[in-house]
Amino acid sequence: MKVPSDLLSFLEQEDNFIIATHINPDGDALGSALALMFALESKGKKVTVFDRDRVPDFYRFLPGQERIVNILNESEVKSKNIILVDCNSLERTGLDNFTFRKTSVIDHHEIEKNFGEIKWIVPEIAATGILIFQILNQLKVTLTPEIATNLYTAIVIDTGAFRYANTNADVLRISAQLIDAGADPAYISNNLYEMWSNGRFKLLIKVLNTLEIRNEMAFTFVTKQMFEETGTFPDDTENFANFPRMMGNIKVSVLLRQLDDETWKISLRSKGNVNVAKVAALFDGGGHKNAAGCKIKGSIEEVKNKLAETLQIVLNI
Amino acid sequence: MKVPSDLLSFLEQEDNFIIATHINPDGDALGSALALMFALESKGKKVTVFDRDRVPDFYRFLPGQERIVNILNESEVKSKNIILVDCNSLERTGLDNFTFRKTSVIDHHEIEKNFGEIKWIVPEIAATGILIFQILNQLKVTLTPEIATNLYTAIVIDTGAFRYANTNADVLRISAQLIDAGADPAYISNNLYEMWSNGRFKLLIKVLNTLEIRNEMAFTFVTKQMFEETGTFPDDTENFANFPRMMGNIKVSVLLRQLDDETWKISLRSKGNVNVAKVAALFDGGGHKNAAGCKIKGSIEEVKNKLAETLQIVLNI
Repeated sequence: MKVPSDLLSFLEQEDNFIIATHINPDGDALGSALALMFALESKGKKVTVFDRDRVPDFYRFLPGQERIVNILNESEVKSKNIILVDCNSLERTGLDNFTFRKTSVIDHHEIEKNFGEIKWIVPEIAATGILIFQILNQLKVTLTPEIATNLYTAIVIDTGAFRYANTNADVLRISAQLIDAGADPAYISNNLYEMWSNGRFKLLIKVLNTLEIRNEMAFTFVTKQMFEETGTFPDDTENFANFPRMMGNIKVSVLLRQLDDETWKISLRSKGNVNVAKVAALFDGGGHKNAAGCKIKGSIEEVKNKLAETLQIVLNI
Repeated sequence: MKVPSDLLSFLEQEDNFIIATHINPDGDALGSALALMFALESKGKKVTVFDRDRVPDFYRFLPGQERIVNILNESEVKSKNIILVDCNSLERTGLDNFTFRKTSVIDHHEIEKNFGEIKWIVPEIAATGILIFQILNQLKVTLTPEIATNLYTAIVIDTGAFRYANTNADVLRISAQLIDAGADPAYISNNLYEMWSNGRFKLLIKVLNTLEIRNEMAFTFVTKQMFEETGTFPDDTENFANFPRMMGNIKVSVLLRQLDDETWKISLRSKGNVNVAKVAALFDGGGHKNAAGCKIKGSIEEVKNKLAETLQIVLNI
């Protein structure tokens, strides 16, 4: 895999970088940004990593995460070079109106806007972390355990722990090299998947108890009372909507989360070619083909009925 | 990794094999046995694969699984060679009193009895499937998609989808070679993890509702009545004991499965260096450091108390 030569020259010749990644950062965003930070620093560069949002608790094990800043001073960054990582528009980072010395992008998402003088965007690659791995190889950066842990996490998160269709032999071979360099698969998985609070697990059980199956749709819901009873918060429901997908005959999983008495945040998760973004859009929401969301008002039954009807009509489920 | 030469000679020189694996077969047992079957057949050998128990539904995608027999005729097998795969005593296969021409073992469990004239037992290896992979390499067997799918499944199951501490760089490199040979990671993961029956999912919810946390131990149980209410079978509980491990403060997860009124099959799952095989051994059971099992008689409360005390004393939990 060939890294564009203008990107390599840019990274080699410039001295002062800001690495920025997207709001609501995930493991690929954080791991890629931090690995690149360590790599550039090993070449004697000055590097700041920026994310507008805080690092979620379960990513606090990532080496270097404590160095991520959430605020940038507009006047100070003008003389610095920006590298967008795991996103390709300034809007996705929350730095909309900032200006920089030179601008660059390293990403695997579809291009949103024509941002960046120097770009390496490869949508067919599983994770931005793999692009960073290739760059580090070309720059002859020694893979330290800190770099390896960040890149391994990036790959694990964006391949669904080697389960999604983007998992191929190269992904596993690169991951093997990262283990050689000091990434510990069990330590990383333990931090990502086995550090739930008891309250969060009890909340999951409460939510699963609300399961209702209609045709090939699974409905679950979480009320404000359930949060109170378990001492949990809305971000504890991350990934909950995926559980009913374990059932072979379920094409769409719908999780209703209560915002106030009669308003619900809806999470839609689907399999394969079932495009729930279409349905979310009808309720002024958005998202991707297999993961989308929106808000709907009404009682639980009214909201379920509305969604079931719409899913049936739009997606023929 | 060197395969013992007597094992290679045995496989090359003999013509008629029975491959037997353990009761309640898992993905490593089935995948290893079926991969070895295809390999030996490609060398012109006659092969029968035996498992006393039925193939669980979620393993029905494994190429060749329809050829597994559940009954053997004692007089017919006398002239045949047996290969125990993923277990190392005849008792574990349900063929206790049978006699064979020559006897052999390929396994990664601790040795239970001194069975087998020809043995390759490597407890430190992640999956028996990896031993089979090495054997096939040495025998210069071409890896077909059928073989690759079986071996990839074996590895995925016994490494917890590349999450357990037995996951290392070699495991990923071998898995990459299996993908090269035709194993499809997403297809396999979908079959293993997203093809549950509604009944199995409802059984999981019932089991999670029995959760009781004592210190750093999580207890859940499943009764015969729960199987009846959900139209499910004991093998549907595969992996259930792992769910409570998601909690950060849980070191051991214990699942009690009712065999008859007062007899329970115990599954123990632990994290890191907590060795539950030690505890299982005290109740005449066996297994690995992080996954072991045994049988105990008593009421639910009695069995829980007995286990909690033993875990506390032996493992200091």
